[in-house]
Amino acid sequence: MLRTHNCGELRIENLNDSVKLSGWVQKSRDLGGLTFVDLRDRYGITQLTFNMDENQQLCAQARELGREFVIQVEGTVIERSSKNDKMPTGNIEISVTKLTVLNASKTPPFTIENETDGGEELRMKYRYLDLRRNPVQEKLFLRHKLAKEVRNYLDGAAFIEVETPVLIKSTPEGARDFVVPSRMNEGQFYALPQSPQTFKQLLMVSGFDRYFQIVKCFRDEDLRADRQPEFTQIDCEMTFVEQEDILSTFEHMMRHLFKTVKSIDLKDFPRMDYADAMRLYGSDKPDIRFGMEFHELNDVTQNLGFKVFDEAELVVGICAKGCATYTRKQLDALTDFVKRPQVGAKGLVYAKMNEDGSIKSSVDKFYSEEQKQAWAEKFGAEKGDLILIISGNVNQSRSAMSELRLHLGAELGLRDKNTFAPVWVTDFPLLEWDEETKRFHAMHHPFTSPKVEDFDKLESAPGEVRANAYDMVINGVEVGGGSIRIHDRSTQEKMLSLLGFTVEEAKDQFGFLMDAFEYGAPPHGGIALGFDRMCALFGGSDSIRDYIAFPKNNSGRDVMIDAPAPISKEQLDELFLQTKPAK
Amino acid sequence: MLRTHNCGELRIENLNDSVKLSGWVQKSRDLGGLTFVDLRDRYGITQLTFNMDENQQLCAQARELGREFVIQVEGTVIERSSKNDKMPTGNIEISVTKLTVLNASKTPPFTIENETDGGEELRMKYRYLDLRRNPVQEKLFLRHKLAKEVRNYLDGAAFIEVETPVLIKSTPEGARDFVVPSRMNEGQFYALPQSPQTFKQLLMVSGFDRYFQIVKCFRDEDLRADRQPEFTQIDCEMTFVEQEDILSTFEHMMRHLFKTVKSIDLKDFPRMDYADAMRLYGSDKPDIRFGMEFHELNDVTQNLGFKVFDEAELVVGICAKGCATYTRKQLDALTDFVKRPQVGAKGLVYAKMNEDGSIKSSVDKFYSEEQKQAWAEKFGAEKGDLILIISGNVNQSRSAMSELRLHLGAELGLRDKNTFAPVWVTDFPLLEWDEETKRFHAMHHPFTSPKVEDFDKLESAPGEVRANAYDMVINGVEVGGGSIRIHDRSTQEKMLSLLGFTVEEAKDQFGFLMDAFEYGAPPHGGIALGFDRMCALFGGSDSIRDYIAFPKNNSGRDVMIDAPAPISKEQLDELFLQTKPAK
Repeated sequence: MLRTHNCGELRIENLNDSVKLSGWVQKSRDLGGLTFVDLRDRYGITQLTFNMDENQQLCAQARELGREFVIQVEGTVIERSSKNDKMPTGNIEISVTKLTVLNASKTPPFTIENETDGGEELRMKYRYLDLRRNPVQEKLFLRHKLAKEVRNYLDGAAFIEVETPVLIKSTPEGARDFVVPSRMNEGQFYALPQSPQTFKQLLMVSGFDRYFQIVKCFRDEDLRADRQPEFTQIDCEMTFVEQEDILSTFEHMMRHLFKTVKSIDLKDFPRMDYADAMRLYGSDKPDIRFGMEFHELNDVTQNLGFKVFDEAELVVGICAKGCATYTRKQLDALTDFVKRPQVGAKGLVYAKMNEDGSIKSSVDKFYSEEQKQAWAEKFGAEKGDLILIISGNVNQSRSAMSELRLHLGAELGLRDKNTFAPVWVTDFPLLEWDEETKRFHAMHHPFTSPKVEDFDKLESAPGEVRANAYDMVINGVEVGGGSIRIHDRSTQEKMLSLLGFTVEEAKDQFGFLMDAFEYGAPPHGGIALGFDRMCALFGGSDSIRDYIAFPKNNSGRDVMIDAPAPISKEQLDELFLQTKPAK
Repeated sequence: MLRTHNCGELRIENLNDSVKLSGWVQKSRDLGGLTFVDLRDRYGITQLTFNMDENQQLCAQARELGREFVIQVEGTVIERSSKNDKMPTGNIEISVTKLTVLNASKTPPFTIENETDGGEELRMKYRYLDLRRNPVQEKLFLRHKLAKEVRNYLDGAAFIEVETPVLIKSTPEGARDFVVPSRMNEGQFYALPQSPQTFKQLLMVSGFDRYFQIVKCFRDEDLRADRQPEFTQIDCEMTFVEQEDILSTFEHMMRHLFKTVKSIDLKDFPRMDYADAMRLYGSDKPDIRFGMEFHELNDVTQNLGFKVFDEAELVVGICAKGCATYTRKQLDALTDFVKRPQVGAKGLVYAKMNEDGSIKSSVDKFYSEEQKQAWAEKFGAEKGDLILIISGNVNQSRSAMSELRLHLGAELGLRDKNTFAPVWVTDFPLLEWDEETKRFHAMHHPFTSPKVEDFDKLESAPGEVRANAYDMVINGVEVGGGSIRIHDRSTQEKMLSLLGFTVEEAKDQFGFLMDAFEYGAPPHGGIALGFDRMCALFGGSDSIRDYIAFPKNNSGRDVMIDAPAPISKEQLDELFLQTKPAK
């Protein structure tokens, strides 16, 4: 090794030891007769001293060192005259006797400090330098630790990690596949997996009983800030289980992770069915770090003369505690917020609970004091509270109100990133109607089983059938989701038919799975957790990008290596392909 | 859970417990008044009994069960009248009171037994049934355990697992890339990584100090029996190390794996430089479970009148202990073996050490007894030994003799799969000359550093330059290889230039890496171990395929899911591609 110790481990106990250290020059300071250099590596920082009186040449050499130079030094551990109790090595320093420059460094395009002056684009291009910064390294260490504890937990619970193939087959259901042309099979393509779904189900048919895999998945979708074309899942499946077994297993896993990685004891996860989540929070991923639940006000607002409410499918409100003091300007800002196209409400009605118990609202000309008091009763509102009301069709009003609730929650400091509020959302609908394609889509995926008690609605009212599907939600973030799967051929055929597959298409795409169901397929179910998002959640970030070593930008490009890129004509020829002339 | 216990855990201590089990029907036997069913899951087999006297209907139901039916039973643990001490549950059985068929099964296309009657093609198509067989499951459990212990070891040694991207950029050096057309970047392609080489080097530039990853890699090569288009590597890199640090670290890791997974204590790994490996074993991956080293015989065979030897660049022999008794037929078979096109020798000369100390050879007319005795001395051959000699040009003779040595070693039972003989082969040449392309190729890869002492030959005699490169070889299998890397721009530029890159090509392909080398790149090196091959080695198999859950066949096809497959015109259009009309 080019060192005897790393830069984080020397202590006062090492006094007078002869040591060899290697690392990066974090900074240096000349104090006349003395030169100090902070030497940095992943493990810490150790101070080096060069004494002009003792060795003029060496000290001169040290003064030539630039930031980020890689050096090796030999010397003796001595006690610092002015100790620094903020750093673990702060009691000692190295009196250097030999200095070797292992590699010089140009001046980095941004500072390698906890707070850097580099813009995002520059930092992406020089990602290897951005990764040198402590806060960025910490994120990848957190990721490593989380992966390790996931494996510890699942291995201890008799799960076996099995690698499933990356070169598979394209299926039209769901998001767009990335495809890989085959050189050995002319005109044919592999696809990269959006998830190992069918393979993990086959492993259950094979009797592996409990499977997991921390695995890369791929979706060729238009990217948003928190999406990446390649992402990592904790993919799990269990045999001979019912929904409750999966919830219990992965709730325990998550509590293990919070305990071991963040020393936080999470309580039992509450469960909430989808219908309640939509009714109370307007979202299937409610942030329950704070209350401010919805109350539906149709019965106390309609048919009293206010046309907007009268014509609405839903009149829904929340109550912001202590916000009756909001100024006109603040209320206007909230109204502007809900009217943004992304939120989509037509307007916002408010009602303030005055200190004298009376109510002042923005629709006072339509409602009497008594009528407004009935609203307040719904919320148990008290003096000083602010009621906010949105109306319209059910889905849009709920969605807009959900945005408003989250916005207010943030504004009121109710969404502390160090508080963690998990909840299981269950009983999702099996199907959702897609207006564009005029057909049903699987809300989760085509392998999710319908609830037995709703089975008879599969033909008559498919949209009302509930699924054995569940999401794990923490702080309003969907950490993962899963379901109890279909495990018999006839139900799977019926499901694919509901989704618009012809018999032939179903056989062509999923014949191998339905065949497998005929050879003793056991009841099974599972879950997939978004690992990138989970890392961001544990790290207290909104964006997953920093938790990925080499992320892609919003155009799906890696700007550091400059990929994707054109390939040679020879490569295309071998793949029996040609690019299409631009139109 | 659909069970209170699994099928492998009930013991005599559970007597009289009410239990619920779920599993597969392995087999059933009718003995008049009693029906026995062996219920199987991943954990074991438990015997169920149905008593015609006690419950006629239930017993009749049990008699209807076919092999591989999935059932759930409730009953009581009772003591067996005839115990089976070969199975852990052999002291008990379940007196069944309730039987539910969870899923029926068609008759499988082959028997689900340790020894099956299914041919390879059929088992590949129904891989999910082949995976139900114990010996196949064991192989994936072994793989899981190995991966776990690799992570335990490396995590304990301060390595951090970092995921590197799968969608990267195609580079012309090395094997053929799989490419992925980009929908968002017209005419451009990602490539799947052949290894995370440049990314792990960038992580060292970033200061991660110790990195590892168990990672899928991809090569679009014509497949041999032991190659797969996607394969798994244990990919590692360390900073501030010299070659000896890497060897020591991964030798310790391998010893840890043998200890924990196979309870085998391996001794220190011997080291052998490439030149010696070629001279003594004719191979850079010598199987040193047995001796039978080569001896070069030019000085004792040439210029004595035998033209074949006289004209040979190399005359090389091995000595097979106690094989002088080989018959004419056996010797002819060995001659036929070495003359096969895959081995490529022109012929084989033998010399038998008779019991009276004289030597009988196939070239007696050219050599005197005294001259032949000089050969025997080279080997320290004794009475009863057989010397076998091949001649020709150096590379071909060594290669043919290596094949013969391995063949004989196997024939003589010297290659026991339960004996493990590791060796580090070091000091590989940096470059090898390729006759076809008339240029040098990197023997390892373009990022491997030349030995400092050979640096001055880079211009004058590139073919003689040795690299800081090493392979870990166990039982003649190359388990992994690595090198100390180049970490400065000018050496990397020189290396790429030697490999025929223009300045522009070098910059286009590896500019990001060479840029990184200018911002304080530390000395670093690493290794990549072939995980599939390692699993096969630990499992005592020659083929990696059984250690992969869903392998592809020799045409790169997954015959179970029938991939690759054509994609739709819409998909091609979106990717700005069209297939080329067949010529």
